[in-house]
Amino acid sequence: MLERLPETVKVFEVGPRDGLQNEPRQVSTQDKVRLIEALAAAGLKNIELTSFVSPKWIPQLADGLAVARAVKLPADVNTSALVPNFKGYQSAKEAGLRQIALFMSATESHSQKNINKGIADALSVLKELSQAAKADRLTVRAYLSVVFFCPYEGRVNPASVAKLLLELQNMSIDEISLGDTIGAATPKQVVELIKLISSDIDLKKIALHFHDTMGTALANVLAGLESGITTFDASIGGMGGCPYAPGAAGNLATEDLVYLLNESGIKTGIDLEKLVDCGKLAQEILGKELPGRYLKACLSSREKKVRAQAEAQA
Amino acid sequence: MLERLPETVKVFEVGPRDGLQNEPRQVSTQDKVRLIEALAAAGLKNIELTSFVSPKWIPQLADGLAVARAVKLPADVNTSALVPNFKGYQSAKEAGLRQIALFMSATESHSQKNINKGIADALSVLKELSQAAKADRLTVRAYLSVVFFCPYEGRVNPASVAKLLLELQNMSIDEISLGDTIGAATPKQVVELIKLISSDIDLKKIALHFHDTMGTALANVLAGLESGITTFDASIGGMGGCPYAPGAAGNLATEDLVYLLNESGIKTGIDLEKLVDCGKLAQEILGKELPGRYLKACLSSREKKVRAQAEAQA
Repeated sequence: MLERLPETVKVFEVGPRDGLQNEPRQVSTQDKVRLIEALAAAGLKNIELTSFVSPKWIPQLADGLAVARAVKLPADVNTSALVPNFKGYQSAKEAGLRQIALFMSATESHSQKNINKGIADALSVLKELSQAAKADRLTVRAYLSVVFFCPYEGRVNPASVAKLLLELQNMSIDEISLGDTIGAATPKQVVELIKLISSDIDLKKIALHFHDTMGTALANVLAGLESGITTFDASIGGMGGCPYAPGAAGNLATEDLVYLLNESGIKTGIDLEKLVDCGKLAQEILGKELPGRYLKACLSSREKKVRAQAEAQA
Repeated sequence: MLERLPETVKVFEVGPRDGLQNEPRQVSTQDKVRLIEALAAAGLKNIELTSFVSPKWIPQLADGLAVARAVKLPADVNTSALVPNFKGYQSAKEAGLRQIALFMSATESHSQKNINKGIADALSVLKELSQAAKADRLTVRAYLSVVFFCPYEGRVNPASVAKLLLELQNMSIDEISLGDTIGAATPKQVVELIKLISSDIDLKKIALHFHDTMGTALANVLAGLESGITTFDASIGGMGGCPYAPGAAGNLATEDLVYLLNESGIKTGIDLEKLVDCGKLAQEILGKELPGRYLKACLSSREKKVRAQAEAQA
């Protein structure tokens, strides 16, 4: 075991979009910019800045264009934003982003409930938008959600996921992120799905997007690493995507992921201490504690040190 | 990957002892008995009922003898209790338990700080107590704590752990539980330690005891399973062992472990639904939310169903 780990891993930060989108407290444009710049300063080279969807759907990200225009980032950061349609695509282009991110579901029911479109129609939209992006020399990322479990259909057939991946690959999409949307996947499912697709799909183009609802996210990352996947999505502090009660874990926390990768001897180019500062900043901006485990342990241990120093001086 | 998983796994429940011991709210003897009986009814066959240490150290478990005498359990449940000395041993014998659990540290500093004894002295105590237990036909479990990280010495040398394990094995101890006491271990460390000891130590006698402080517990379980370990400790709801802030994760939650094992096709003989009821009971008894992830997700989803039914009837 652990004999086939990659040397380097790409961490794709989704906090400023996926993390923030369901947050009830309105975050200012300035705070969003601060957070994104801090994430880049911690070494993250792939950041989803915002989403260009209708403010009616996601009021939190209504200032997407302002955010994307205001951030000052190093030249080698891949700036991405979620776009649902041509209007959103125009905004991404206007903002000078490098990548657009598209989304669709792996099941018919989730697709209908989520975007009011079936899979076939969603694929058409993805095809048109990715062609436009290619013409404009933007790269394209696609999110495929509910690839393991669907809240409406239960366990998802890996063969149907494999079929969709082939269609997406034929559209020359640069990266496809497979989402465990309800956070119920386990390593066995991860290994089985990757094994099934590995003969037809270039695994370098596959990212895994886990939620830590059941505490299985890092076990799934390990299964993904061993199966040949080298890109993982994560959200600073574990922000966002809570399908259950308040306090329940949502997205895999970037710090938890980077801790595991560091300790496994895998390079990410990310400074874990600075990442903890980003998590602290995210907590301040949102005015609440985030579910990330490493963050909690680290901040508590910093606090203890500060208290001990204060007591020693008293 | 996942090609060498065992068919069955033994789950060792430490909630009633390790889980409860640091809880500030005094739990009644009756509630402890209810919880233990519910755990057995969920299918757990190995339960640490209490600890026979001085009530000055652990007031929460001062009623250990009363608990151990009051519980009514199926005949095939291995009843265990932690004992630090001969006085505690006599209580375990009087209560008619099947197993005693002894403890020591893998590092000199932790041993001194924790039990005010060095490793050599701790080994002498373990030897005497295990000989007494053997003579009385009780089985013996030993906890070896801080095997990966020590809060005083940092990263622990696997060779020194291996040496201690050989000494414990020579005492004919039936099971040795290796503790990641501060919850900072990662799969690489787990694999390296097990690999190192596997030539000299019977892995069937080794249990792994993880804390979920950094969110790595289930990833570590996966690493342990793949390395040939078939016994894992867990605590209902993730009760106990919080080395950091309130709300920080402590012990690996039994439900999270069983969910992973079930989904990996590994048999445990445990009913996950009943285990969730035990977690709910533990929350009620303690008057607070526990950190277990599966528990949280499950209870929240049950609540949603109840609300939906109520609305449908209204």
